[in-house]
Amino acid sequence: MTDTVVSSETREVVIGFDRPFVIIGERINPTGRKVLAAEMAEGNYSRVEWDAIAQVQAGAHMLDVNAGIPLADEPAILAEAVTLVQRITDVPLSIDSSIVAALEAGLAVYKGKALVNSVTGEEERLETVLPLVKKHGAAVVAISNDESGISEDPDVRFEVARKIVERAEDHGIPRCDVVVDPLVMPVGAINQAGRQVMHILHRLQRELKVNSTCGASNFSFGLPNRNGINSAFINMAIGAGLTSAITNPLHEEMMQAVLGADVMMGHDPDCRAWIRKYRVAPPDGVQGARGRRQGRRRRA
Amino acid sequence: MTDTVVSSETREVVIGFDRPFVIIGERINPTGRKVLAAEMAEGNYSRVEWDAIAQVQAGAHMLDVNAGIPLADEPAILAEAVTLVQRITDVPLSIDSSIVAALEAGLAVYKGKALVNSVTGEEERLETVLPLVKKHGAAVVAISNDESGISEDPDVRFEVARKIVERAEDHGIPRCDVVVDPLVMPVGAINQAGRQVMHILHRLQRELKVNSTCGASNFSFGLPNRNGINSAFINMAIGAGLTSAITNPLHEEMMQAVLGADVMMGHDPDCRAWIRKYRVAPPDGVQGARGRRQGRRRRA
Repeated sequence: MTDTVVSSETREVVIGFDRPFVIIGERINPTGRKVLAAEMAEGNYSRVEWDAIAQVQAGAHMLDVNAGIPLADEPAILAEAVTLVQRITDVPLSIDSSIVAALEAGLAVYKGKALVNSVTGEEERLETVLPLVKKHGAAVVAISNDESGISEDPDVRFEVARKIVERAEDHGIPRCDVVVDPLVMPVGAINQAGRQVMHILHRLQRELKVNSTCGASNFSFGLPNRNGINSAFINMAIGAGLTSAITNPLHEEMMQAVLGADVMMGHDPDCRAWIRKYRVAPPDGVQGARGRRQGRRRRA
Repeated sequence: MTDTVVSSETREVVIGFDRPFVIIGERINPTGRKVLAAEMAEGNYSRVEWDAIAQVQAGAHMLDVNAGIPLADEPAILAEAVTLVQRITDVPLSIDSSIVAALEAGLAVYKGKALVNSVTGEEERLETVLPLVKKHGAAVVAISNDESGISEDPDVRFEVARKIVERAEDHGIPRCDVVVDPLVMPVGAINQAGRQVMHILHRLQRELKVNSTCGASNFSFGLPNRNGINSAFINMAIGAGLTSAITNPLHEEMMQAVLGADVMMGHDPDCRAWIRKYRVAPPDGVQGARGRRQGRRRRA
């Protein structure tokens, strides 16, 4: 079925229904991170560097790079961050901005086939972002809202996604290069948010036959034990057809949920990845009482 | 949609597609528990008592009671265990035996509407267990194997389930009182085991419109970090239509996965159950590094 191929200079990653789930590390994003924002605005990228390496080590297959800092020169900062991250890691990047000039600056320096994050169903966005995606031969995240905002009706969101996919095709971008974000609502506010996402994901896979991604952690907004909710969310969303997510690979519970989902979906042959990760010792943060006691003794 | 109602003398539990997931505690079972087996054979039920109370406190909605001890008087022991557990808890029971006389003895003393565990698609089982289920107005677990064993083809297992449901109807047992066990294979041996289960569960919900249950932990047999795999399994299986499971409610990760699945399915209004459980402090065994450090300080 549909494969979305993205790449760095030396490595290809494929998002697809018959593939292991793709984790796009979300950490390189100054939104809500004051220290990171101040450092990036000053041209200090040491934290970006650390975030890049730590996320890849934790198992991220791709990294999202965002430089949305108020009043800063976002195009220049995004281009610099993209260049730096490509110098120290070999994973493909998602170039993330709501400013078209910043996407353009990031794409101009990017080596490989990037994922552009994102285009919405708004006319003006469609007609500025899609030509850019086409020009650079990139793939693009399609967010299922438009001028009327985000509909609470999942079928309306699905129709926005369909419009973006069709418009992309008009611009010469094949649907395998459009990755739809169905928009995840906080379940604390909308009780049917989980059902809605599963419903759209089913339709995206069966009717539009496109890959999907989402900001997984939005689902648990405002609730306690967010990693617990996020794990249930990611498992059930993968079962419903989700093929990638922009999330934090440093959260061990989330990574365990994704590896478990790969096993469940038959995408981890002979459970090799699972066994490699868990056979020696359970990871910190998800181990049982016995493992923890032993761990404490070792540290003492 | 289909509701399976079971009860004790004072409490009703409903298994259904529009209901919170039902956990059937698996612990009262001497299989593989030598000490418990020896004690039960001697008429010592203190461990049964403890298992009953601990599982209900941990969140089990029902309890499975099994007395399968080689060379022991299983009917008498099962009847005694059922009576005892009904005296100290008010949850409905699943009366579990492969011996028809034991099922009969358990049903004879049971107060309420029990779940009989189980009938298979074997002719001789169908014609002895189903009349017993009908006589006592009970519900029954239908295991999807027959004289030819357990098929690796999920569609063959589905056809066995269909045969049992139809035969139950011939005996006057409505399909809402048949809960199908699709048989969970170890994914370490059969890489497509997860896909197979999801496929059968979809068909059970859409075509047969019957509830389902399974022994969830079988999926992870032979693999490290079994609770991690079991959590992914239970989440994705619930997303695919599983409505109950026979499992160990003392495993905190499993309970978290089930509560998370209820949130995801829209079966936890306003996330009340989730918030009640997790708002004060995350439970032992699934908490993050920060909670654990604090916990250690408090204990010191």
